Amino acid sequence: MQTKRHIYLKKKTREEALDIFLAALPDYSEWPEEEMPVKDALGRVTSRQVQAVFFSPTANVSAMDGLAVNSADTFGASETSPIRLKIGEQARFVNTGETVPDGFDAVIMIEDIHQPDEFTIEIMAAVPPWNHVRPIGEDIVVDEQILPSGHMISPPDIGALLSGGLTKVWTRKMPVVGIIPTGDEVIEPGQIPEPGQVVESNSAVLAAFLKEWGAEAIRYPIVKDAPDLILAKAARAIEKSDLLLIIAGSSAGDRDHTADVIAQMGRVLVHGVSIMPGKPVILGIVDKKPVIGLPGYPVSGIIAFDLFVRPVISRMLRRLFPKPDSVKARIARKLPSKLGQEEYIRVKLGNLGGKYIAATLARGSGVITSLTRADAMLKVPMQSEGLDAGSEVEVYLLKSRQEIDRSIIFIGSHDPSLDLLADYLARKEMGLTLSITHLGSLGGLMALKRGECHLTGIHLLDPETGRYNIPYIQKYLPGKKVHLINLAFRDQGLIVKSGNPKNIKGLEDLVRQDIRFVNRQSGAGTRLLLDHWLVRMGIGNSLIKDYRREVFTHMAVAALVKSGGADCGLGILSAARSLGLEFLPLAKEQYDLLVPEEYFDLSGIERLLDILGDKGFKRDLESMGGYDCSNTGEVQCLN
Amino acid sequence: MQTKRHIYLKKKTREEALDIFLAALPDYSEWPEEEMPVKDALGRVTSRQVQAVFFSPTANVSAMDGLAVNSADTFGASETSPIRLKIGEQARFVNTGETVPDGFDAVIMIEDIHQPDEFTIEIMAAVPPWNHVRPIGEDIVVDEQILPSGHMISPPDIGALLSGGLTKVWTRKMPVVGIIPTGDEVIEPGQIPEPGQVVESNSAVLAAFLKEWGAEAIRYPIVKDAPDLILAKAARAIEKSDLLLIIAGSSAGDRDHTADVIAQMGRVLVHGVSIMPGKPVILGIVDKKPVIGLPGYPVSGIIAFDLFVRPVISRMLRRLFPKPDSVKARIARKLPSKLGQEEYIRVKLGNLGGKYIAATLARGSGVITSLTRADAMLKVPMQSEGLDAGSEVEVYLLKSRQEIDRSIIFIGSHDPSLDLLADYLARKEMGLTLSITHLGSLGGLMALKRGECHLTGIHLLDPETGRYNIPYIQKYLPGKKVHLINLAFRDQGLIVKSGNPKNIKGLEDLVRQDIRFVNRQSGAGTRLLLDHWLVRMGIGNSLIKDYRREVFTHMAVAALVKSGGADCGLGILSAARSLGLEFLPLAKEQYDLLVPEEYFDLSGIERLLDILGDKGFKRDLESMGGYDCSNTGEVQCLN
Repeated sequence: MQTKRHIYLKKKTREEALDIFLAALPDYSEWPEEEMPVKDALGRVTSRQVQAVFFSPTANVSAMDGLAVNSADTFGASETSPIRLKIGEQARFVNTGETVPDGFDAVIMIEDIHQPDEFTIEIMAAVPPWNHVRPIGEDIVVDEQILPSGHMISPPDIGALLSGGLTKVWTRKMPVVGIIPTGDEVIEPGQIPEPGQVVESNSAVLAAFLKEWGAEAIRYPIVKDAPDLILAKAARAIEKSDLLLIIAGSSAGDRDHTADVIAQMGRVLVHGVSIMPGKPVILGIVDKKPVIGLPGYPVSGIIAFDLFVRPVISRMLRRLFPKPDSVKARIARKLPSKLGQEEYIRVKLGNLGGKYIAATLARGSGVITSLTRADAMLKVPMQSEGLDAGSEVEVYLLKSRQEIDRSIIFIGSHDPSLDLLADYLARKEMGLTLSITHLGSLGGLMALKRGECHLTGIHLLDPETGRYNIPYIQKYLPGKKVHLINLAFRDQGLIVKSGNPKNIKGLEDLVRQDIRFVNRQSGAGTRLLLDHWLVRMGIGNSLIKDYRREVFTHMAVAALVKSGGADCGLGILSAARSLGLEFLPLAKEQYDLLVPEEYFDLSGIERLLDILGDKGFKRDLESMGGYDCSNTGEVQCLN
Repeated sequence: MQTKRHIYLKKKTREEALDIFLAALPDYSEWPEEEMPVKDALGRVTSRQVQAVFFSPTANVSAMDGLAVNSADTFGASETSPIRLKIGEQARFVNTGETVPDGFDAVIMIEDIHQPDEFTIEIMAAVPPWNHVRPIGEDIVVDEQILPSGHMISPPDIGALLSGGLTKVWTRKMPVVGIIPTGDEVIEPGQIPEPGQVVESNSAVLAAFLKEWGAEAIRYPIVKDAPDLILAKAARAIEKSDLLLIIAGSSAGDRDHTADVIAQMGRVLVHGVSIMPGKPVILGIVDKKPVIGLPGYPVSGIIAFDLFVRPVISRMLRRLFPKPDSVKARIARKLPSKLGQEEYIRVKLGNLGGKYIAATLARGSGVITSLTRADAMLKVPMQSEGLDAGSEVEVYLLKSRQEIDRSIIFIGSHDPSLDLLADYLARKEMGLTLSITHLGSLGGLMALKRGECHLTGIHLLDPETGRYNIPYIQKYLPGKKVHLINLAFRDQGLIVKSGNPKNIKGLEDLVRQDIRFVNRQSGAGTRLLLDHWLVRMGIGNSLIKDYRREVFTHMAVAALVKSGGADCGLGILSAARSLGLEFLPLAKEQYDLLVPEEYFDLSGIERLLDILGDKGFKRDLESMGGYDCSNTGEVQCLN
């Protein structure tokens, strides 16, 4: 294996990098334009000032349903000396929008007309000239500006343009962005990955962002990790692009060729920015066109793209993208961060009694679901080593505040039925979401105690009494009024490979040297259950190989067993079944939801209770395997 | 002429109308679905819960560039007793994203490796299992939910779906909205209107809104005002639509057939809502499908559409539209409003020294430019008779706050050169706009005094001294430090029809009985000039027919002369020239911009000064006709 490695150019701060990049690029005040049909020009930016060709209205028209009169005929009219006008001669019926006939200059509203007989109206007050008449050009005057240049066209603008006689409009050309995905291990969507292969999804994500921003993406086929192939493709692509993106290979590893390729074509301005995720980004310029090497990790790539590509598109289109909304939030747990790098943390937000609480999501730059699940982004500045639990921070919203405000926050033990519950909730009421964070039973109980969630889910066996959950609630939430709602009884057991090739019979086999175990994190109900059983069986933790290898969910346990990364782990039947694994049942346990009194009347919680009482939900839950719904939805009020 | 007139059903409040309408419609929790390619699914709403088909990562992969090792080989290593591993056998180079080879379970970062020789590494501390390894399924686990149902697909969601093995996704079908424009006087865009005809622009505006909301519009050709034609078209269109819009004919005039047509096809639920604009809206139902008669006036139609169609589209798509952002603003001038109707006022907003000031735009429901020029919408409640000048109100933003904050607010005398200035400004700096309100010279001076604008534009002749502007500033803004900047000298004169058919020679002809005059509003510099000359010539106002017929701009004067609505009016050469009219010059006058000291350093004002010094700008201005730029851009500091 080759061991040659690149060296980063001196890393830059985000601000330095952007300054260097933008200073090297054209200012884009000049940009190609194209003429568009007005009706298709929504969201496009005008490249020239647009002036009206027609008047609107095109004549003096009535603003009301009524009678057109000549104002001079009405002078001197009063209650005591009314003036009579002959309909048809001195007064004519006109509808809203109709041209006021020649010789008439005012309109009396239909509601104000007094008709002594069919052919006559009686006027009690003088009518001023132009009363209820819209003069020609009231809205739009020929030659006057309808839109300035550099204006993004909205739906009403389309109306003004058409009314002003325009059917075509000059707009700034859509920037064309070439996207070249690279990598030996990446495969096209639709192909089945071998272990270690990755579906190339980044280009589709970037293309979707570009569509939202008003640019066009040309996505080229995946190129292998070979510098000459990448160079050949990039050299052709740059000719058809206003901006070129090369995905992956932007780091300093021995398969990372992007920086070399850009240097051969033009100039590398920046390689490496002190941001996390997104550090290994390359900002370059080729023939006055920006060429950017993006990290292959999805979150890294998206963040670098947003920071360095969006400003360029903005300049090309002269379109100011609105800043995201922000709110003040309290961070739930201590958040360490590396000094000297600006970190972008994805968080879930909950509105708990009027205050926003932020819970951090997975920080790995490869975890795309940390972005899809995020409600907001938190920026930890370069000079910070992190934030203490409880500190108030500003977070930038990725969803609407309304949506966040209506979210029901669940932090607690993992169970696949929660996703089913969330789906039922979303179906039942528009815009109501169940936001789920897996933190184990004890973690959930503590989060509830600290006011970080609306509800938790727990399955905690008290070894002394043999009772579930209530002893823990009494211990950790003394005196707090709470509602305990049964979700289900479920089967816990050992998840093993299909066919049980290592012939595992029970927990006593965990001490075997040929058995690779995967454990749950401490504080998980399943971990407590294991520890309780091990104590009862007299098996010391230290005898179990990999006892400290921890994952956070039942599905993660099943996934490791499925992949061969482990031989067995403790978990629930539905997790084993969904991956086609075998299951050795050990016990039936009680999984309950816990809601404090103050949130029990929330409409979202009421909807959840409705769903737990729903036969369809129970049927769907039982069909997942290992669930007993005989008590589902039963509520106990404690304290 | 027919005089039959309809009667409105009893008018409803907005809330009543919406309740009645939504209660009669299905709840749309069931809605047709369609399978979409994931890459094209941006903005679509999932109709089913989506579960992963692949793991991501698909194997245990390295999270770093480094060396894969077996953690067990490193136990016991320390600074004093380092452990040596053979590269190739006990340690293997891996790049970020590469599969960790069988038999290895941890990665040491390249930066942390100590190599005593080419073939060996030295370990100073034990490496825990899974160090820098991304376990299989860290991001996505087979069978686990990627997206719930009812979720709008964002760019990162596309990444998660593709990574999870999906290439297609089930989404709620786009609602299809049929749009039938009606009216004898409306013509297709691209045709040249006769006087009194109107370009049909409403359907394109509604289609653009529908596109933004995620629905599809089918626009039918214009139908004449004949009940049987409209009925035949609507009956066919409803079959292909999920929702049908009939534009115009929704009022109670004798050409208004929409209510009858809907009643014949199904049921009219509401006719007339106490909102302004938007009152004559019809809410109906045909075969369980919503059919809506929209007012033909563009602003009325758009407001009714937003209030009654958007909630239906929202339910069909189960998509929650975010509420617009709002700010507190002070209204500049008294705002009367009719008791018993909810009024929607379009306003311009300015950020003046950190406070938002709202200035109302034209209130006519036919003035589409009142929407295109608006920054925000102000709702005056039903129970209110209006708002006093200076009251603080909540306004809903139609533009981003950033854009509004960067706007330079001009209130003052009208001159076409201001549009040219605004266009230069928009070209010069992205996102910087000059927001122009025409209120005459004295109106502008008063607005500046009250702190409603950053600058004004005036041309005020002092009859006693014969000097322009400075005497008025001394009188109305005593002691205030201001900067007076010359925009240009310009020709004022009488605008008359081409060929001067009435043989007008000067102001003395205004008293002729065959001359129809159009005047400017009081407070306009041009009006003061006229009054000054009339006094000098000894002509009494009352001798001039139509002396009280007022319009607000030079172009409006020219437009009335052009259309034959007037024979002459006082105005500037450029206005006459742009409409091909004749011009009798009377005087050269001085038009100045006035900026108070506190705003003189604003970057937007600095840019304006740059432009006034620009040769290209002066050339463009002089080519408009009647401008003398010899002093343009010269600054005088007063007080």
